[in-house]
Amino acid sequence: MIYLDNAATARPSERAAEKANIYLTEKFFNPSALYGGGFSVHSELEAAREKLLSFLSSPAVHSLIFTSGGTEGDNTAIFSSAKRGNAVATQGEHAAVYESFVELKNRGVEPRFTPLHADGCVDTEALLSLVDEKTTLVSVVHVNNETGAINDISSIAKAVKRKNPRCVFHSDGVQAFGKIPFSLPPEVDLYTVSAHKIGGIKGVGGLFVKNGLPLRPLLYGGGQEEKRRSGTENVFGIMDFCFAAEERFVSLSEDMKRVRKLRELVFSSLEGFRRISPEEGSPYILTVSAEGKRGEVLQRMLWERGVAVGTGSACSSKHRFSRVISACGYKESVLDGVLRVSFSPSTTEEEGLFAAKMMNEVSREYGERV
Amino acid sequence: MIYLDNAATARPSERAAEKANIYLTEKFFNPSALYGGGFSVHSELEAAREKLLSFLSSPAVHSLIFTSGGTEGDNTAIFSSAKRGNAVATQGEHAAVYESFVELKNRGVEPRFTPLHADGCVDTEALLSLVDEKTTLVSVVHVNNETGAINDISSIAKAVKRKNPRCVFHSDGVQAFGKIPFSLPPEVDLYTVSAHKIGGIKGVGGLFVKNGLPLRPLLYGGGQEEKRRSGTENVFGIMDFCFAAEERFVSLSEDMKRVRKLRELVFSSLEGFRRISPEEGSPYILTVSAEGKRGEVLQRMLWERGVAVGTGSACSSKHRFSRVISACGYKESVLDGVLRVSFSPSTTEEEGLFAAKMMNEVSREYGERV
Repeated sequence: MIYLDNAATARPSERAAEKANIYLTEKFFNPSALYGGGFSVHSELEAAREKLLSFLSSPAVHSLIFTSGGTEGDNTAIFSSAKRGNAVATQGEHAAVYESFVELKNRGVEPRFTPLHADGCVDTEALLSLVDEKTTLVSVVHVNNETGAINDISSIAKAVKRKNPRCVFHSDGVQAFGKIPFSLPPEVDLYTVSAHKIGGIKGVGGLFVKNGLPLRPLLYGGGQEEKRRSGTENVFGIMDFCFAAEERFVSLSEDMKRVRKLRELVFSSLEGFRRISPEEGSPYILTVSAEGKRGEVLQRMLWERGVAVGTGSACSSKHRFSRVISACGYKESVLDGVLRVSFSPSTTEEEGLFAAKMMNEVSREYGERV
Repeated sequence: MIYLDNAATARPSERAAEKANIYLTEKFFNPSALYGGGFSVHSELEAAREKLLSFLSSPAVHSLIFTSGGTEGDNTAIFSSAKRGNAVATQGEHAAVYESFVELKNRGVEPRFTPLHADGCVDTEALLSLVDEKTTLVSVVHVNNETGAINDISSIAKAVKRKNPRCVFHSDGVQAFGKIPFSLPPEVDLYTVSAHKIGGIKGVGGLFVKNGLPLRPLLYGGGQEEKRRSGTENVFGIMDFCFAAEERFVSLSEDMKRVRKLRELVFSSLEGFRRISPEEGSPYILTVSAEGKRGEVLQRMLWERGVAVGTGSACSSKHRFSRVISACGYKESVLDGVLRVSFSPSTTEEEGLFAAKMMNEVSREYGERV
């Protein structure tokens, strides 16, 4: 099988899982236990935290808390920060941000959504015009999970802070972390990452938190994570996350260059597909549309031929049209035909070319069927 | 090493982890993905849910949602149900319930805590006297994690419902599930369980929810778990949880009988330790006190001799005295010396006897040192 749905979930790194396996056998202690075994697990957890933190920031600027995944990170950031007034996000947010913003309405906070450009990037001017003195939170997705569009969150955060220095800036970095070279500037207060998009297990993630920013917990209890996220730490999952991230960060830029070439090769091999992903977007995501055809039908035909691809976000797969790609301004016939081809650093040229060939084949066959 | 801190976390089942390993290799798909691989992971997840549900209830009465652990289950139950008026818990609750109740105050709900008997059981009459027409939630821990005291939550739930039929009844069953034979009566609306106390991995749990009970989510996003808990499912962790639970439930009653004998053997071999755990409590927990000595010092001396035991709850290990054992009415000299010896179904007689011998030895040596 050729797996090109890495933006939904990546194939777990076997090496990382093997290295982490010791936390399921020998080193299974509760990190809160006050004896040698507990102390040593605790300190290995702290070393993993330090390592993961170092990939984007430093202890002088941010800290990192572990969560049960991207969704918990986004929810923690949003419900902690958007306490009154209004909160501004984009129409390109992942459901974990978007649905939390919708929920804000029930909590007396006005959610505001900024329109997107056709390529999936946020319209920064429009965003800034929505920020006012009552804005308590701005949340802008770093890499759009459906188009791969990259928002320049460093510049946006700086512009937002110029307009309202008290407002908290959050970004969902789930599709960026371990894929796109990036450093967290101090203007980004909160940044969400996830393990399973880069070879870790599902159910693990992290939230970078600017030093000094008060965080209202989502989970109360034993006081783990400096009282910011209670619950026994998922030691195996966290250590595995760290090992998987280390593998990605060692060759982030080289991988990105190679995958960019691969993406262009795949796109240039496609016949009759309209490109939705911007060229300057994340190379790991190539979203196209077989206009007038049904993406989910093509997706199943591809699966039967041994190729796994996505259609928009797996998380929002219950709606006919992708909310995000709709917001890019495409008409229904384009939205219907959306396929998301998402690569990993280990996707080969052969796999990409085979997938393109199969995409052309199913698209033709679909035409003949109708 | 003789590991007798199973109430803090159990040694993960290697068999369960091996069986679940396929979800880290072959079957790594996102269960929301709309192609064969996603469908099959999804249906295996649903089979695991059905299996785990069947251990305590049936689809006719309860459903089960997966969480990131006991803490998330407790928090979801409490913040969903205690919306106004007052909420009643016991002084014997785990921190995940207790601290959530403390937080309720900030949200306009009055938390009320019921006193305990000396053995750690809740004073049911006192509890019922705290329940009135404004009570929206009652939460009673099933098996006390610090003493092993078992609350008869079925009878308590029924009595609570007689007094106020609209009030929601929740129980933290983390130390009961997979250890104590029990069926969930319809009067228990919400019941929290955790994987890592019975051989699963840390970071996984479940919440049993009475059919028809509206649940306000803690996490918003992709709409997983029937919109009651968004976030990509921890497939490996959930399948591993199911496999670990199956191992426990196959011989629940026999294990319990054997461990009860073992617990009594260990206690009868101890010299100069005061018993805190009630005889009729969970056999998996034997809490004792070396009066006048410091439990955490004894704990470290035991670790040096190859025996791991707890002192009160690992989760609340930052306080000098255990809140729960304090609430049982013991004086400071007893509270100081608390050790919690917690067994697993595979603890042998030899291990128990060796641990008792070492406990006697460190207790004597402590006396000589001072």
